[in-house]
Amino acid sequence: MFAWRIARKSSLRRAEGVRLLPRQIGACRFYAREQDDTHATTQTSSDPSSGTKKDNELKLTAESYPELTRGKQFKKLDKKDIEHFRSILPDNAVLLDDDAEAFNIDWMRKFRGQSKLVLRPKTAEDVSKILKYCNEQMLAVVPQSGNTGLVGGSTPVFDEVILSLTGMNNIRSFDPVSGTLVADAGCVLETVDNYLAERKHIFPLDLGAKGSCLIGGNAATAAGGLRLLRYGSLHGNILGLEAVLPDGTILNNLSTLRKDNTGFDLKQLFIGSEGTIGVITALSVLCPQRSAAVNVAFFGVKDYASILKAYVKAKEHLSEILSAFEFMDGRTQEFVKRHSTHKRPIEGDYPFYILVETSGSNKEHDEEKLNGFFEELLEQEIVADGAVAQDETQAKALWSLREGITECLGKDGGTYKYDMSAPLPVLYDLVDATRERLDAAGLVGEGKPVVDVVGYGHLGDGNIHLNVAVRRYDKEVEKCIEPFVYEWIQERSGSISAEHGLGLSKGKYIGYSKNKAMVDTMQRIKQMFDPKGILNPYKYLPPV
Amino acid sequence: MFAWRIARKSSLRRAEGVRLLPRQIGACRFYAREQDDTHATTQTSSDPSSGTKKDNELKLTAESYPELTRGKQFKKLDKKDIEHFRSILPDNAVLLDDDAEAFNIDWMRKFRGQSKLVLRPKTAEDVSKILKYCNEQMLAVVPQSGNTGLVGGSTPVFDEVILSLTGMNNIRSFDPVSGTLVADAGCVLETVDNYLAERKHIFPLDLGAKGSCLIGGNAATAAGGLRLLRYGSLHGNILGLEAVLPDGTILNNLSTLRKDNTGFDLKQLFIGSEGTIGVITALSVLCPQRSAAVNVAFFGVKDYASILKAYVKAKEHLSEILSAFEFMDGRTQEFVKRHSTHKRPIEGDYPFYILVETSGSNKEHDEEKLNGFFEELLEQEIVADGAVAQDETQAKALWSLREGITECLGKDGGTYKYDMSAPLPVLYDLVDATRERLDAAGLVGEGKPVVDVVGYGHLGDGNIHLNVAVRRYDKEVEKCIEPFVYEWIQERSGSISAEHGLGLSKGKYIGYSKNKAMVDTMQRIKQMFDPKGILNPYKYLPPV
Repeated sequence: MFAWRIARKSSLRRAEGVRLLPRQIGACRFYAREQDDTHATTQTSSDPSSGTKKDNELKLTAESYPELTRGKQFKKLDKKDIEHFRSILPDNAVLLDDDAEAFNIDWMRKFRGQSKLVLRPKTAEDVSKILKYCNEQMLAVVPQSGNTGLVGGSTPVFDEVILSLTGMNNIRSFDPVSGTLVADAGCVLETVDNYLAERKHIFPLDLGAKGSCLIGGNAATAAGGLRLLRYGSLHGNILGLEAVLPDGTILNNLSTLRKDNTGFDLKQLFIGSEGTIGVITALSVLCPQRSAAVNVAFFGVKDYASILKAYVKAKEHLSEILSAFEFMDGRTQEFVKRHSTHKRPIEGDYPFYILVETSGSNKEHDEEKLNGFFEELLEQEIVADGAVAQDETQAKALWSLREGITECLGKDGGTYKYDMSAPLPVLYDLVDATRERLDAAGLVGEGKPVVDVVGYGHLGDGNIHLNVAVRRYDKEVEKCIEPFVYEWIQERSGSISAEHGLGLSKGKYIGYSKNKAMVDTMQRIKQMFDPKGILNPYKYLPPV
Repeated sequence: MFAWRIARKSSLRRAEGVRLLPRQIGACRFYAREQDDTHATTQTSSDPSSGTKKDNELKLTAESYPELTRGKQFKKLDKKDIEHFRSILPDNAVLLDDDAEAFNIDWMRKFRGQSKLVLRPKTAEDVSKILKYCNEQMLAVVPQSGNTGLVGGSTPVFDEVILSLTGMNNIRSFDPVSGTLVADAGCVLETVDNYLAERKHIFPLDLGAKGSCLIGGNAATAAGGLRLLRYGSLHGNILGLEAVLPDGTILNNLSTLRKDNTGFDLKQLFIGSEGTIGVITALSVLCPQRSAAVNVAFFGVKDYASILKAYVKAKEHLSEILSAFEFMDGRTQEFVKRHSTHKRPIEGDYPFYILVETSGSNKEHDEEKLNGFFEELLEQEIVADGAVAQDETQAKALWSLREGITECLGKDGGTYKYDMSAPLPVLYDLVDATRERLDAAGLVGEGKPVVDVVGYGHLGDGNIHLNVAVRRYDKEVEKCIEPFVYEWIQERSGSISAEHGLGLSKGKYIGYSKNKAMVDTMQRIKQMFDPKGILNPYKYLPPV
């Protein structure tokens, strides 16, 4: 399937191991990549059969979380409310009962709310009118974007009104000189990225759900994704926001300026606020120039320490063109070998693998840099073997070894999944520690619930996906993992939710990553912006 | 002084104009660069003779701002307070009277407070004890970092206690793999950058005051500087903060994680808060790999539109290696020619000039990219002439044409200076509009107060320095400029303070860049964090 060539006719000590074909693969795109990673959330309330059930057979969120009770302060929706919404909103913006059902269920079919009303505003003014009324009437509201989240943040727990942003989808402006885009919150990420591609620019965020997720939701959840290593977080790339506060105030901070030091940077509070203090209705984003050349390489290495060494070399050799540095352990590749047709481009098995992607403006330069990188890795015996894709098909094949992991892990029954970040030196220790713990408890092996404990992730971001592949979901396994993994992360000052946020399922664990003073301050922020607590109740922060 | 060569023997239409010598200049550093720009603040209360006066002859800030009165709610310092501070702080941490005098005066000698007490804590716990006491006793406090600000934000207006961070200067840790640095707020920026240089990394911020400014102050003022085009703003690069709230609570959010989606990103509120809601005591920062190669080029162009065209080409050709794109009008260079010995590397006069810097990991690749860029600029007649520095001396000489502007502008008497940002298409229009207005008022020309109206700045950041060079400061000129320029910026959704912040002198103008809903929300944030208003009073936001 792959064609290879020796990297260079130089005096490499292990040149026989090198198979390198640095032919340009073009500005390929990987839309499907990491769609699987977006599943990477704790599987505590999982029901493997949920996919086959009818909507009205799915377990209600209120049943899955019996500890939650509906807030008595919230009014129950009545006819007068519906009439009011019909009177203030455009046609087709009010969806009731059966029409609202689909909005109650998340895309994983794991959460199911009981809302009877979906509102689809067209403008920030519409959103303002809705929130003002709900705030006055004490109607609870769930803002909903593409509904592709993983922690139950965008579906109702009880009968909250669903405020869907899908009706607001205009790209307002783009300046090709500065690269600043202004667009409605309800624009689909992929649509925006295609629009930018035609103008030689790129949205500074890429993730598996790009075909469904909306950029407002990306902002509200501070989405990380695949371009973070290269372009940094949305906290740096979003230049301005328009958001509506619970009392209906429109906060217009839709600046397109890169520099503006006039007061508190309020927009930052909304980035990652998961719809708890306001509804984002539009954003302006700094979009980088699109890279003309993309290369993908794959390496086998003998231990985790070598991955870190390779990363240091990647920063030196690839520096400004490095766009992805993914790692996976050999155990993940055993699953991929057993359960898929994806083929590794290098012979033999290695304890770890690395996938490196470069994106730059000059393909020859990039290939030369990649060659130099590869040569030093071999010379210093940091990697044992490796390959570079020679075209887009090969690049996709290499990515599939990384992308295919999640699907293959679930084939034996199911997977307990954790999305963590921690300091790089100890990042993989989490996987060993969890495996040892489960092993010591006699839960791993044939006839036992656990098949294996594996790890993979975005090394450049210090982000690991810990996965416990099981033959069946098992309370004993669950108790052995939790709160152990959260405590492990807490002791190393890591994050219990690196990119997926808190929503309904993780809010209660925030204390493992943020201390009391921090959580107290967050609760005061919530109280300040939303004193009546109508926005996305029961989620994000523990109750005061 | 300069050596040149023709860029390429290709069929360039205007090859005779090209003088290019793309020899590597090494990883040169420009410590002094743009020190002058740090003066770029409104000169409204200027006193050109202040530099020659003794400290105690300088005008008091309270006199320059007669509209301000000392807050009656604040207690006056007494002996018991001093005794208390001596009892809780380490030796030499309490400075009184004459020892406090130097801390009352800013580095421009434009602001002078009347504080009798400076406290120099060593730890966050010290800061906590100080603030807790001051909050209880209603003693107003001014946090002071390197005191290199431009808007009077770090000196007292009346008798506020000065809390100097200069005693906290330990680099706590650096991880060369991830590039994350953790350091006390009182570390000098240059010291930190030198420390990082030895480890092949770079602080993602560079500015003229680097030898004096402290990284905590950089964070508190969201400093922009020279590396913003390449590395983005501190909002993206600061990974964590430790800050002390007015009531003494230590907010420890000193994370070194690139990804952590657990709750509101509180640190962002402190970045750019100018000491009004808490005192930053430490920060963790993501530091990029240091570039091995740096190139500097200088071009003459016929109009502002060509600058924008050149910037688009720079993004295409230089893309990931572009590290500076500065522009200046020909009028600035007339001042440089008249008042300095700096020589331009190209013959003839042009209406505009561009300075481009690249930083990359491979010097040959960078030079090739720069050549390609230059060739296309000439082919498409976007630039008329240009030169590339062949060594560090030449690079510095090119930078001096940009750096020397401010000093030369003041030689005829003085300068009214404004630091603005606005959308790129209209950025330079501000200069023309201001010149036309002053001209129409009969204020420009020989025998008149105004020598000329000029503009220059960081094009890549949409940041312009508007300068009105005058023979003498003149109320009529001032009235002609203000509030005209603020209104002009407001109409174009620009910022009246792109990088210098608000402090004492700009707080009252915030309404030109932020609407009422934004300012109201900011005031509520201030009230939430500092209900007694002890931190940096009279500044930043208009009084409630």
